Formats: sequence, C-alpha cells, structure tokens
Amino acid sequence: MAIYLDTAATTSLDPKVLSVMSIALKKDYGNPSSIHKKGKEAKELLEKARKTIAKCINAFPEEIYFTSCGTEANNLALRGILATTKKKEIITSVIEHASILSLCQQLEKEGYKVHYIPVNKEGLLNLKELEGKVNFQTALVSIMYVNNESGTIQDIGRIAEICKKKNIPFHTDAIQAFKKIPLDVKKQNLTLVSLSAHKIYGPKGIAALYVKKGVLLKPLLYGGKQENTLRPGTENLPSVLGFAKAAELSFPVKELERKKKYFLQQLKQIPRIKVNGSGKNSVCTIINVSVHGVEGDTLVKHLSEEGIYLSTGSACQSQSIEPSHVLKAIGLSNQDAYASIRISLNKNITKREIDQTIKHLKSIVSILRKL
Amino acid sequence: MAIYLDTAATTSLDPKVLSVMSIALKKDYGNPSSIHKKGKEAKELLEKARKTIAKCINAFPEEIYFTSCGTEANNLALRGILATTKKKEIITSVIEHASILSLCQQLEKEGYKVHYIPVNKEGLLNLKELEGKVNFQTALVSIMYVNNESGTIQDIGRIAEICKKKNIPFHTDAIQAFKKIPLDVKKQNLTLVSLSAHKIYGPKGIAALYVKKGVLLKPLLYGGKQENTLRPGTENLPSVLGFAKAAELSFPVKELERKKKYFLQQLKQIPRIKVNGSGKNSVCTIINVSVHGVEGDTLVKHLSEEGIYLSTGSACQSQSIEPSHVLKAIGLSNQDAYASIRISLNKNITKREIDQTIKHLKSIVSILRKL
Repeated sequence: MAIYLDTAATTSLDPKVLSVMSIALKKDYGNPSSIHKKGKEAKELLEKARKTIAKCINAFPEEIYFTSCGTEANNLALRGILATTKKKEIITSVIEHASILSLCQQLEKEGYKVHYIPVNKEGLLNLKELEGKVNFQTALVSIMYVNNESGTIQDIGRIAEICKKKNIPFHTDAIQAFKKIPLDVKKQNLTLVSLSAHKIYGPKGIAALYVKKGVLLKPLLYGGKQENTLRPGTENLPSVLGFAKAAELSFPVKELERKKKYFLQQLKQIPRIKVNGSGKNSVCTIINVSVHGVEGDTLVKHLSEEGIYLSTGSACQSQSIEPSHVLKAIGLSNQDAYASIRISLNKNITKREIDQTIKHLKSIVSILRKL
Repeated sequence: MAIYLDTAATTSLDPKVLSVMSIALKKDYGNPSSIHKKGKEAKELLEKARKTIAKCINAFPEEIYFTSCGTEANNLALRGILATTKKKEIITSVIEHASILSLCQQLEKEGYKVHYIPVNKEGLLNLKELEGKVNFQTALVSIMYVNNESGTIQDIGRIAEICKKKNIPFHTDAIQAFKKIPLDVKKQNLTLVSLSAHKIYGPKGIAALYVKKGVLLKPLLYGGKQENTLRPGTENLPSVLGFAKAAELSFPVKELERKKKYFLQQLKQIPRIKVNGSGKNSVCTIINVSVHGVEGDTLVKHLSEEGIYLSTGSACQSQSIEPSHVLKAIGLSNQDAYASIRISLNKNITKREIDQTIKHLKSIVSILRKL
C-alpha cells in the first residue's frame, strides 16, 4: 500500500465527500439558474452548501463566492480590489504561493508598485516592515495564513489590525490553513479569504472567496448573473456539495499534531537533517526538512518507487528549476534548498506508516550519500 | 418520471461518464504536477484526455487548454487576444451568449469599439455587414456556431474565410454545437473555439479552449505553469476525464433530427404557435416557439409541476426581466418574446415522452388562454 504524504499538493476525497458527490453527480444535475423544479432544487442545495461553508469561518452565506480553484480565488481577490480603486500599491510577502507572486509580477508590469515583505529564519513576517510600507497609496495587503512549503503560520490577526487601523482591505490566502487552525473572519478582521476544497479532502475544481459584506469587487469574468455577477458560469453543484461536505467534516488536528511530533522525533534517526521553518508556529500537516548532501528531487523519486509519495515543495512550482523561493527567503543556501523535501501528512496516517517512511528514507539517504 | 427538455441549459451525466468519474474521484486524486508516481499517473491520464478531445475537433493535443467553464473559455479567448494586440475593434453578433455580450459591454467601457452584427428573421448573420466592418483595427471576430436559444447554425466556415483573408483571429463559441454538427478546426479554419462538457452529458465545471498553434494568448489568471501557463491552477483531473469520455461517446444526431421533426409536427396540434429561428439551419436539439397569448414563464412553471422541465431561454439570463435579446434580434415583438419557450431535447427522449409533453402543453395552454 502506498503512503501518501503530499496532501499540501492535493488530497484524496474523503469517503463521505465521495459519497455526497456520487449521489449529486447522478441526481443533482439541474442548472441552479433554471426556473423549473429541477433547477430550483439545485439552487436550494447550492445555497445550503454556501451556508455550510460560511458557518465554518463565521461568515454570512452571501459573503461566500464560489470559484473554480484557489488560484482563481487569489486572482479575483487582488484584481477585484485593484479594479475598484485608484491606489497603486500592494503589500505582500516574499513567500506567497505562485498565484499571488506571479500575479504581482504581472501587476508590476501593469504599473503597480508591489512591496514584498521579507521573513525571518522561522518564516515569520517582519510586521514592523509591513506596517512601515503602509501608506495612502496602499490598495490592499495580501499575506498567506499558512505557507504551503514550510507550514509556517503567520499572525494574520495582527496584520489585519494594522490594515484595519488604516482602512486597507486585507486578503489572506487561507488555503493551507482552512480546517487546520482557527479561522474566523469576524474575530480576525479579515476582508478577503481564499479557501479551496482539494486540500481538505474535497474535490479539485472548486474553491471559494470570502468577501466581507460591503466590500466591492469587480469580476474577472463577464457573463451571466451567477454568484451575484461576481463569478458568472453555470454553478458546479456536485463539486460545491463535495466542498461543503469536506468543510463540514471534523479535522483531526490534535491527532495530527501528535503524529507530526512523532514524525519529527523519528526523523532524528537520520544524521545531518535540518527542519526548516518554525517549530512552534507551524501547521500540523507540514514538515519541511533539508537532508544534507542529497538532492530533494532524487529522494522524492526513490521514495516514489517504494510507494511513498511526497514532494520537494509546491506542485505548482514543480516545473521550475529554481530553488524554492520560500526556502531561500528563510535563509537557506541553494544547496540546502535543493536538498529539501516537504512531508505533508494525510489525516489518516498511522504510526506504522511513519515508521515505514522513516525506514525507507534512512536507507535511501544512506545509499545516496555514499554515491 | 420527469421529462427533461432543458439540455441547452445543462445535461445530466451520461452513465458512462458517471462511471469514469466515479472511478477517477476515488482513485485518480494525484496532482498532475507532482513528480512522484501518483502525480505522473495523473499527468498521463490528463494528457490522454487532452488527446481525446483534440481528436474530436481535428486539433493537436497541445492546442487544447482546459478551463473551468464555457464562460471562462469565452472570456479567455477574447481577453487573451486583446492583451496581445494594440488593435481596438471587435466584431461579434447581437445574438451571442451573455459571456460574450457582457464581456463586450465591459470592453466598450475599457475603450474598445465593438461591432454587433445583426441577424435576419431566421437568426442568420448578415455576412456582408460583417465583412464590411472588418478593417485594420479589427483585433478579432467572435461569432457563436449554434445559438443557445433559437438553435440557429451560423455559416462559420464562410466567416472564417473572411477572417483568414484579412488575417484576423476568428473565435467561435461552439458550446451548443459540439458533438451535434461538424466541427473541424482545420477544415473550418478556426483560430479559437470554446467547448463545454456539461452540454454534452459531461460534468459541470470543466470546459476547453482550442487555440490554434502559433496564436499567442495572454492568460486571465496568473499562478503555476499548468496548461502551458495559459491557465494556472491544479488540474481538475476527474472532471477532465469525464469531459473526455463525454466527447468520445457517439451522439445520436440522426435520431434526434427525426425526433425533433416529430416534435415540430405534433406542436401543430396547438393553435397559434409559431416556431422561432431557422427551420433548415437549426441544431437537432433545440426548438423555440412562441405560444400566442401565454407567458413563457407561466408555461414553464405549470409544465414543471407536471414533471416536464423546459425553459424560456438561456439559464444564464434567467434572472433578467428583459425579453430575450435573441428573439428580439430575429424580429419578435416584446409580446411574442415573452410568450416563448425553448424545448431542448435530451438524447434519450422517446416518442411517448414527446406525446406526453404535447398533451400537457396543449391542456395548459388551453387553460391559460381561457384565463
């Protein structure tokens, strides 16, 4: 049996999500915009799912907009705000996901000024520097809640406070955080939040953007009046229902924290290994380590042959030959960055699977180091 | 049992598509961008599906880009071209889908000049007028292949010839045409073609844009390098596989032509009914009629109570209180436009279901006319 340790890239479907989707794919094919019974039934299910997701983050249902993926949610958040203001500056961090960083690079070409806030060795943002960059030209601040490579958790509550004081919209990409750490849009003063289904055992091809009531966004796409005209296109109901089911299921955070701790202890069996990112402020699902003297890529391939699936970093960056921008940002040398692997725990991982992973890792590392 | 006659809005899943998707949702959860075996397997399936869809329209696999819906494919086609040229004029028609017309209205606000070519009573474009509007400032021509409300088929081969002569990219929204009438990107000289899965018994939330080799588009979204960087975001493999399966299945066009003919004959039982659109140049799945003295909306609701599901027009426009822009364009009065219903045949419809529909339609129309 394979051991899947790449849940930060994508997850399998929870059996309960699969069951909901199997029924919906067969039965709930109506177009929620159709005015006949089949359409109305679909519309009701859609709105019920919206409520479920809203409730998970303490939002109002009408603040939830479904999109086709996290990348779209992130793009919509930034472009949506920028299109409604004349302000020309954006504050983000050096460790964001490609869907923020590539977009920001494009925005720079379009005349925007983007401030990329650095992080310390633990991967935590320099909030003083962030606060210092805020000015009357700041259109929005976008900082991810949990980093997808290092697992580091940012203090988004404090960032939101800084933004609130200056009346600046704050967007957080919470895709790796959702279900794993507290997320409350009201308590945390969030303006815009990106969520995605396929990192929490829901389907691919569905995500959501939370938009605080009263905040106006311009759409990226034009068409019908779906999603209050912010996101036209026939609603993908079966996937929305799968997303809602995944959001509603309880997530075994405490258990994963214990398992991560155990994994980290066992990793000590391998000499010259270094844990990257923060020890304390780190999500329960992600471990990132540099294995001295070994290429991460090679390690991933050898482990894959043993049926153990993990990664060197972001799947969205796998076609890049550059060392990870996240690991470079927390101070790793090129060599250490290339020697890194990301282990992202699945929620059902057993002690036996961890032991097996360690066993194979140890043996492969030892062989590779001898070469 | 319900009779579903709203396939132009959306279709149910073909049982074979459902079966493919059920397996994929359970098994093929890998991220195609991951470099381990689970990812590579997903990547292979993705590329195989791309080949299948390419083959259906005589394209190369690398000319197929998956998007999240037809609206996105249409938006990407237009925005993608416009972002690579300084030309500021667009030629389209008055009867396009909301995802082209709303976008064009937005583009006008952004400084583009849009020419909306009118149609005759059959819904056919005035090609002379189209040719007359082409000039050195024309960035692209976008004309739908089959109209979603009237079913009228445009002569896209001739439009493509006009465009080819002047070296102008030609986009066609072929979403209602795909699988129902010949579509060959090479023979028909097409530059960009939008396709969607959920109108051909495939899943919602997946579509594709054909982009002729050598034609450069700028993306709408920025992020990872998926879909050759034209469409970032984790690939929605289970839906892509469902789309490919739906595209690969044979479509009973001849049978539907016979059934449509029979339906039209039976409709004559109802007095003062008028078929809208073209008799000859019309897709096998769509019938549009005005029922004199009756509101289409009311008719749809009463039929829905009998388990017969059809519509007054586009689902994407169902929230609009305006009369259909398509029916107005082919010369209907407001009264006749409001008195219209669209009957879009499902591929398995039986003679008995047609007879039942006619029976109920007849009785409801007669009651409503007496009120």
